[in-house]
Amino acid sequence: MRDAVQMNMKYSIGVDLGGTNLRIASYASGVDFLDTILVPTRLSEGRERVIRDMCEAISALSKKGYGPRTLAGIGIGTPGPLELPEGILRNPPNLPNWDGFDLRMAVESTLGRSIEIESDANLAALAEQKCGAGQTHNTDSLCMLTLGTGVGSGLIFHGNIWHGATGMGGEAGHLVVESNSPVACGCGGYGCLEQYASASAVVRMALEIMGPSAPATSQEVARLATEGNPEAKIVFSRVGHSIGIALTGLINTLNLPLYVIGGGVCDAWDLFAPEMFRTLCTRSYVYRLTQPAALQPATFERHKTYVLCAQLKSNAGLLGACLLPFQQN
Amino acid sequence: MRDAVQMNMKYSIGVDLGGTNLRIASYASGVDFLDTILVPTRLSEGRERVIRDMCEAISALSKKGYGPRTLAGIGIGTPGPLELPEGILRNPPNLPNWDGFDLRMAVESTLGRSIEIESDANLAALAEQKCGAGQTHNTDSLCMLTLGTGVGSGLIFHGNIWHGATGMGGEAGHLVVESNSPVACGCGGYGCLEQYASASAVVRMALEIMGPSAPATSQEVARLATEGNPEAKIVFSRVGHSIGIALTGLINTLNLPLYVIGGGVCDAWDLFAPEMFRTLCTRSYVYRLTQPAALQPATFERHKTYVLCAQLKSNAGLLGACLLPFQQN
Repeated sequence: MRDAVQMNMKYSIGVDLGGTNLRIASYASGVDFLDTILVPTRLSEGRERVIRDMCEAISALSKKGYGPRTLAGIGIGTPGPLELPEGILRNPPNLPNWDGFDLRMAVESTLGRSIEIESDANLAALAEQKCGAGQTHNTDSLCMLTLGTGVGSGLIFHGNIWHGATGMGGEAGHLVVESNSPVACGCGGYGCLEQYASASAVVRMALEIMGPSAPATSQEVARLATEGNPEAKIVFSRVGHSIGIALTGLINTLNLPLYVIGGGVCDAWDLFAPEMFRTLCTRSYVYRLTQPAALQPATFERHKTYVLCAQLKSNAGLLGACLLPFQQN
Repeated sequence: MRDAVQMNMKYSIGVDLGGTNLRIASYASGVDFLDTILVPTRLSEGRERVIRDMCEAISALSKKGYGPRTLAGIGIGTPGPLELPEGILRNPPNLPNWDGFDLRMAVESTLGRSIEIESDANLAALAEQKCGAGQTHNTDSLCMLTLGTGVGSGLIFHGNIWHGATGMGGEAGHLVVESNSPVACGCGGYGCLEQYASASAVVRMALEIMGPSAPATSQEVARLATEGNPEAKIVFSRVGHSIGIALTGLINTLNLPLYVIGGGVCDAWDLFAPEMFRTLCTRSYVYRLTQPAALQPATFERHKTYVLCAQLKSNAGLLGACLLPFQQN
C-alpha cells in the first residue's frame, strides 16, 4: 500500500528511440501519459545529434514539474541487440553505424544523471504484462512477439524482464523455423522466424509466390488475402505456420501461461491465426495438454496456455520505457 | 552461515524412479550419498506395487537414523510430463499406463508425510547446477539437455528449477529442429530434437543411412564412427547439427551463460560436438557475440556462453532428488 502511494507521488520520463521517430513522454501511475514529444530521429546527422535531441526533450519535460510529483527516473528503450548491464549497442539493424555505441554513457554524461536502459521489444513485453494482456489474464509471466519490420520479442518472468546473462535474452525472432531454408536473415543465420513472420517477410513471400505483380507492402498483401486472393492467403498461412513452429518451441520449453503477439502484422490476425493454432495443436503437446476450451473464454482459466493479440498498440514500447523506473530490479 | 550449519545437521532421502530401475538414497550435504538402494521397477505388477517398493525403501532408510542428523525431506524424481504443483503424471512415455496417476498423493498417503516431487530431467539440471558444471563455471542459471532414450531437459534460473505454469517447463527435447520432417515423435509432433539426438534417433538414422547392416545400439554406431566409418560419422554429424539448431533457439531466446549436455549419447561428444559448434556459430548471433575465445578456457570468463558436456554421470537425477528438500522453493 505504501508502495502504491509512493508510486502515485512520482512521475517518470520514458523514451522510445526508433529508427524513424524519437518519442519522449512523461508518465504518472496507471496508463496515463502526462506529456509526449515526437521528433524525427536524425540518424543522418550522427548519433551525437540524436542523443542531444533526446536529452533536450527529457530536460524540457523534467523542467515542467508535475505538481507534488517527483521524478522517479528515466527509462530509455532502444532497438537491440543491447549488451547489459553496460548499455552498449551490438550491431543494431535499425540504427546503422551505431555498433559498439555506449548509449548509456552517452545519455548519462549529457544529462548528468543515471538512467535505466532496455531493448524496445522487452519494454513492449513489460507494458503488456503490467497494463495489457497480463492484467486481463492475471499473470506476471508472459512472452511477447512483436511482428514489425523485424520480429522482436521479450520475456517477462514473475513480473521482471528476463535479460539473460548479457542482456540479449528474448530474441525469439531468431528461432530457426525452417531448418533447411536458404533464406538469409539479418542476424547472419538462415530460416529464422523473422524471415517468415515480419512485414518484410510478408512482402518477400508475396513476391516469391505472386511474382512481379505482388504488392509492395504487407498491408496490401493482407488486403488481397482478405478479398480472397488465394496466393495472398498462402502467404499468411505461412506466417501462421512459422509462428506456430516458433511458439511450439517456446511453449514446450517455457510453459508460460500467456503468449502475446503484437506489431503491425498483427492487424492480419484473422488471416494467420487459424494456421498458427492448427500448427500449435499438431506440434506442441504442452499446448494440447493446456489448451483452453475456448480461445476467448468469458473468464480466464488458470493452468491454461493463451496465445493472444496484443492489447496495447504502438504506444507499448514508450509505455514500457515509462514503467521501467518503477520496476524493483 | 546458519543455513549451512542447519543443512549440515540434516539429511534427505531421494528417489529416482526410472522405467527399469528404482533407486533410493539418503544424502547429507556436499555430494555424498549415505546409503543407496537399487531395486527393479516392477511395472508389470502395477503401479501400486512400485509405490509400495519405493515407500518401503524410503522407510528403511529413514529408520536407520544418521547420528544427530534429522530428515530435511523426501524428494522424488519421475519421468515426465508431470503436472505441478499437483504431482500428476500426464501420459509419461517411460511409464506406460500411468497417465493421470496422482503420484504425489499415492506416495504421501502411503508414507503419511509430505514429499517434494519433480521431473527427472529437471533434477539432473538442478544437480548439475549445484554440484557440477554450475559450480566450476560459477553460475546459478543453466539449461541442461539429457540425451538418453529420449531427450529430456531442464532449466535452472537463479538457482531454482523453472517449472513453467503447470510444471512442464523445460521440454526442449520437443523443439522442432526439422520443420519439414515426416518423422513422428512420441509427443505427437514431427521433427522434434528427440528424433535427431536421442539414442533411439541414432539407431533410426543409422538404419536410414546404412540399411539393414546398421548396428542395433547407439554405442555400436559410435564405435563405427570412431573407427572412421563414413556413414556412421554422418549420423553423428546430424546429431550435432540438430543440437546446434535447438541450442540456437535456446541461446537466442534465453541468453543463459551455460548449456550442459548429458545422458548416454554424450559419450560420443567428440563425434557430434564439432558439427554442433559449427551450426551454433553459423546460426546463433547471440552465441557468436558471446563465444568464449577457447572452448575449454583455463579460467571461466564472465559474459560468455558455454556449451559443455555434463560433469555428473548417471547419478545426476538421484542426486537432484536428494537436493530437492534443501531448496528454498
